[in-house]
Amino acid sequence: MAHGAGGKASRRLVDGLLAPLLYRQSDPVEGDRLADAARVLVGGASVAITTDSFVVTPLAFPGGSIGELAVNGTVNDLAVGGARPVALVTTLVLEAGLPTETLVAELRAMRRAAGVAGVAIVGGDTKVVEHGKVDRLYISTTGLGHPLPGVTLGARSVRPGDRILLSGPIGDHGITILLARGELDLEADLRSDTRSVFPLVEALAAAAGPGLRWMRDPTRGGVATSLNELALDSSLGIHLSEEAIPVRDEVRGACELLGLDPLHIANEGQFLAVVAAEAAERGLEAIRRVPGGEAAVVIGEVREEPQAAVLAGSRYGGTRIVDMLVGDPLPRIC
Amino acid sequence: MAHGAGGKASRRLVDGLLAPLLYRQSDPVEGDRLADAARVLVGGASVAITTDSFVVTPLAFPGGSIGELAVNGTVNDLAVGGARPVALVTTLVLEAGLPTETLVAELRAMRRAAGVAGVAIVGGDTKVVEHGKVDRLYISTTGLGHPLPGVTLGARSVRPGDRILLSGPIGDHGITILLARGELDLEADLRSDTRSVFPLVEALAAAAGPGLRWMRDPTRGGVATSLNELALDSSLGIHLSEEAIPVRDEVRGACELLGLDPLHIANEGQFLAVVAAEAAERGLEAIRRVPGGEAAVVIGEVREEPQAAVLAGSRYGGTRIVDMLVGDPLPRIC
Repeated sequence: MAHGAGGKASRRLVDGLLAPLLYRQSDPVEGDRLADAARVLVGGASVAITTDSFVVTPLAFPGGSIGELAVNGTVNDLAVGGARPVALVTTLVLEAGLPTETLVAELRAMRRAAGVAGVAIVGGDTKVVEHGKVDRLYISTTGLGHPLPGVTLGARSVRPGDRILLSGPIGDHGITILLARGELDLEADLRSDTRSVFPLVEALAAAAGPGLRWMRDPTRGGVATSLNELALDSSLGIHLSEEAIPVRDEVRGACELLGLDPLHIANEGQFLAVVAAEAAERGLEAIRRVPGGEAAVVIGEVREEPQAAVLAGSRYGGTRIVDMLVGDPLPRIC
Repeated sequence: MAHGAGGKASRRLVDGLLAPLLYRQSDPVEGDRLADAARVLVGGASVAITTDSFVVTPLAFPGGSIGELAVNGTVNDLAVGGARPVALVTTLVLEAGLPTETLVAELRAMRRAAGVAGVAIVGGDTKVVEHGKVDRLYISTTGLGHPLPGVTLGARSVRPGDRILLSGPIGDHGITILLARGELDLEADLRSDTRSVFPLVEALAAAAGPGLRWMRDPTRGGVATSLNELALDSSLGIHLSEEAIPVRDEVRGACELLGLDPLHIANEGQFLAVVAAEAAERGLEAIRRVPGGEAAVVIGEVREEPQAAVLAGSRYGGTRIVDMLVGDPLPRIC
């Protein structure tokens, strides 16, 4: 299960097995091959493409459902890949006997989310398998995007002194799913943060221009895993100010009770950005002016040292190493 | 299960439920919305996109495996959509405990098939779910293609007098899967026909030019279902010459024993094309000159009447109505 959790084992699976077996040097792609969205040349035009599958359980939860996640997750991978989301295609694997109401509710959720995000759903495929051969409904979505002009992203563009921006409070999605499963005797007034982050990304890109270096949406594995990947890929040190990272009381409380680190909890409506120091304030203000971006903050900066590591400093002066997610505290989060 | 079989119930599901719920009039797409591949404008460039999920059982069978199907199926949807396949992305849903050898074998199969088809695999996503929540491995693939210049396809372009071309013998894939399950006390020297049909399509398109009206790869539901969809969408009559349709003895024998119609059996390496009468001979010769296209034939023609129906004439002068697949004689064929 850990191989699917988005943390260390996932990275080993992707870097060590999937990418070497599937990729070739000669492929007609541009940029970072392990980014959230790939760039492909189709008849001379650069197209961003990303794909994701969704196996979340339960199918519906406070603030969203698998259909919304399937749209917003793919829209967000395009957004943090520096592209305007244009179109989606989707495949549905249905368990024989799935109630029609469940299917209709999820199709409606997909269309509603696509409408809000301004993308068209242009095609799909459906398979039905026997009862017990899939857990009700799995969805895959693939998104096509149009690269934003003047935006070049990549861990190799990140420089010491760059600032790390976060769009809002973390952990809402993961803890919402955990509580929605009802296996714990815990309740909290919490909703998934699932949404399109493209409006925030677009504002940031316009304000920061070439000062925008890198973006990622911290889903499986959370902020800690995304920033560890950045640290590894850039060979730089990421210094976080723990107290600057917004975490709702409900999320913090649940994490303390369960021995989880909010930095490892999945988000579905936030993004991280690395922005050159001189563009950071401008970028932050631009995000904050967009509805839903009011809580954006600078949470840290990039330094030369320690190479390939993430550190978090507390208000009391202590510093801890923030590791990638190890194992899988919370399977099937998206 | 019938809703996933590609026949009548599938068409009702897609036309009656999925498309109305997911599509909007204002979507930035060109052409037929229920074709095998959609056309989307991305930054002014026309891009063909198609998506498919694969849940075949068993995972490996004579002539191929799920990984090859996942590549070739998507490549073929682009090809019959009139586009040159360029790139693929893929999502894998793995059952916890799936042997690494199985995963590696399927990744190798995907890369090999992609290499043969000349497409790059440019990205992917992996989810792992608990034992029993998926049947070992499901794959979704999405393909991007570059529209072939001068090719405009659609049921509405089809005219009375047009000829119907078929690239080779039918039913090999479906019957191979049926026998590979080992539930029947039948054996035959048969292999899946899984392959890219793009080289054949490209030759046909070059030879027939604007005389090429419509193409489809007859997978789930077989030739009968594809041609019934054409008949419905064009309101024309499709007249087949039963004896012209190539069917291997092993496929015919298995169908006779099991009470199946070869016209309903899935194919993974054949395609149907409607070509203007004056371009049919030229198109056929072009396909036959490509390795693997030697068995291409004209199997019938389009007439005014009977509207929206498919008829097959036998060598003895009888004529039968060929209906869409009803029910699901053979679940999880791809």
